[in-house]
Amino acid sequence: MNIINLDHMSANPLLPEVQDAMIEALKSNHGNPSSQHKLGDMAANALEKARESVARLLNSNSPKEVVFTSGGTESINHAIKGVALAKAEKGKHIVTSNIEHNAVLRTLRRLKMMDYHVTSVPVDNTGRVNPLDVAKAIQDDTVLVSIMHSNNEIGTIQPIEEIAKITKEKKVLLHTDAVDSVGVIPMDVQKLGVDLLSFASNTFYGPSGAGGLYIRKGVAVWPLLDGGVQENNKRAGTENLIGIIGTGVAADLALRDMNKRIAHAKKLKGLLLRELPNYVTEYILNGHPELSLPHLASISIKYVEGESVVLMLDDENIAVSTRSACAAGALQASHVLLSIGRDFADAQGTLVITFGVDNGEKDVTTFLSALREAVKTLREISPLYPKAAHA
Amino acid sequence: MNIINLDHMSANPLLPEVQDAMIEALKSNHGNPSSQHKLGDMAANALEKARESVARLLNSNSPKEVVFTSGGTESINHAIKGVALAKAEKGKHIVTSNIEHNAVLRTLRRLKMMDYHVTSVPVDNTGRVNPLDVAKAIQDDTVLVSIMHSNNEIGTIQPIEEIAKITKEKKVLLHTDAVDSVGVIPMDVQKLGVDLLSFASNTFYGPSGAGGLYIRKGVAVWPLLDGGVQENNKRAGTENLIGIIGTGVAADLALRDMNKRIAHAKKLKGLLLRELPNYVTEYILNGHPELSLPHLASISIKYVEGESVVLMLDDENIAVSTRSACAAGALQASHVLLSIGRDFADAQGTLVITFGVDNGEKDVTTFLSALREAVKTLREISPLYPKAAHA
Repeated sequence: MNIINLDHMSANPLLPEVQDAMIEALKSNHGNPSSQHKLGDMAANALEKARESVARLLNSNSPKEVVFTSGGTESINHAIKGVALAKAEKGKHIVTSNIEHNAVLRTLRRLKMMDYHVTSVPVDNTGRVNPLDVAKAIQDDTVLVSIMHSNNEIGTIQPIEEIAKITKEKKVLLHTDAVDSVGVIPMDVQKLGVDLLSFASNTFYGPSGAGGLYIRKGVAVWPLLDGGVQENNKRAGTENLIGIIGTGVAADLALRDMNKRIAHAKKLKGLLLRELPNYVTEYILNGHPELSLPHLASISIKYVEGESVVLMLDDENIAVSTRSACAAGALQASHVLLSIGRDFADAQGTLVITFGVDNGEKDVTTFLSALREAVKTLREISPLYPKAAHA
Repeated sequence: MNIINLDHMSANPLLPEVQDAMIEALKSNHGNPSSQHKLGDMAANALEKARESVARLLNSNSPKEVVFTSGGTESINHAIKGVALAKAEKGKHIVTSNIEHNAVLRTLRRLKMMDYHVTSVPVDNTGRVNPLDVAKAIQDDTVLVSIMHSNNEIGTIQPIEEIAKITKEKKVLLHTDAVDSVGVIPMDVQKLGVDLLSFASNTFYGPSGAGGLYIRKGVAVWPLLDGGVQENNKRAGTENLIGIIGTGVAADLALRDMNKRIAHAKKLKGLLLRELPNYVTEYILNGHPELSLPHLASISIKYVEGESVVLMLDDENIAVSTRSACAAGALQASHVLLSIGRDFADAQGTLVITFGVDNGEKDVTTFLSALREAVKTLREISPLYPKAAHA
């Protein structure tokens, strides 16, 4: 089936080179990297090669700072619960923002059940955190600040570097959920100044269910997975070596092609935003006009239900999303959109378009035509749409 | 390189059918199972098909009782930490055995740092737990019993069904680490009567870094990974769909071929044990003579270092292990072997041989010849070997 994928945020296709590397890994039947014989050595070499690739993508000082995990969610749980539990004697207060991903929100909700307390700072109407709000929120018993690098629904990029200066001065650890940034836009953990950073391989066309956590040397975190001595004793469990090998190749390609991919995404997003007024009226663009992911556009379309648009476009073999796939099925308005000032109805009428390397300009115009029809149909049956005014 | 793999416990090769299914999955670029469009539907269907296969392998009542994870270690951490945290108000006492895998031991050690306390019951000299010891260890504040189904170093199978009768009567939850049993020997969670059961896909020739946790319907466990609503809200994070698809196919094949594989393993193990006295003197067979994994033999060879034997056999392209790959590199004597009465020197001279579907009788005799040479060489240079007596 020929589907136009404009929902790369939910799932990126594997690049051919990544596929090839994973198929080769599948066929070569690597052993267990922890084994002390040749089968193990070959596996260990492949594992460390991938770790070096990821370290380069993050500009980490050392591959030892990279821990492979089962993906962004595990990395985030590992970082937040790991710091919270390791530092429990120092304090049980954590600072975050109002627009974090559910992996952060629900991890913090879990910690609240264990007597931790959380301060969540607001964002402005572009979705940006004010670093001064973070500074004000830090208390004597604060052990961690966790602010996302970029937002998965509206694309806004946060001032992590400025926040890191504050946390460093106040001697509080800083974690950033960079799941939607790593491999998409330039990333430099040293320049950023973060202590922990979560990423997911699929974001940069690697496999789903794989990812990792950067832990700056010297930062003490309790493992989420206790057991064997894998991952430099930071994450137990036999490795998903096939996924890790795919991650390494995807990281190499992301670094090599990043500028090209950004330019391609910007071109498509530019076309979409330029043409959109010719196809749909009465919408709001969400997020920051410049400080935003290059491949993401969030559009709140008045007088329609986003879910209905998704289903109608699906009939035309066009995949788009209303929000994070992780929250799909949860029939609540997006906390992100409410946080930047959308009302409930506008939040419900929101589409998230995310472009990828497999998209072309034709996809944009095909989407726009289908969107025009869907919006027209839905507005005709909407009790909210003031028909007289638009007749 | 043509390597004779007698260390299947560390890493099983992927079966051709599993490889094919995973390669097809790689190439078809499934979407995100949580997405609400066709790309997502296809992924969700593949996910649920694999879940049904695993439910059949376990004889679970419902696929909803199966949660896919990143492997045995995550499953064990999820089960033990999840019950401990969910039941903290009822009590903070856990019962286990002296010969558990590090994933259990270190998870419990972690919980001790959070004011939990643990009673560890002994095993007899075949490695069996006495259910009466478990009954005696259960206190008013006990919330969980975690006893492994079979041991990864000596192969002994535990009386889980009898232990389950005790935990049920005393209203305590029972988890079993069945990582080395599921897919190898018949498994029936209903007959066993366990509340939680951990498994790993590679044990039955599926991919590494994939596995799952059986959670009996109605058992409340805190997720280890908080975030999205995946896995029926029991385990957040975008799924490792390629690994899960491989797991499903491997589960189907394990169920279909189990009797054949057991017969094959028993034949090779029988040959090994029959012939061993003709090649090596002064050794002890560890584990239970009957209630044991069919494909595992543990041999403590006097006056040699197991690690040295592993390295010498590796030079002959034969892979064997001294113990769990997860503990390799940790230069302590095995707690399992010490628990069944081996002394420190004998524990250090132990080899674990695990057969697989790719082994034949020739592998056994090639191994035995190489072992004879290795043992002879090592004993000649060993200060412990009483040379005069053997001259």
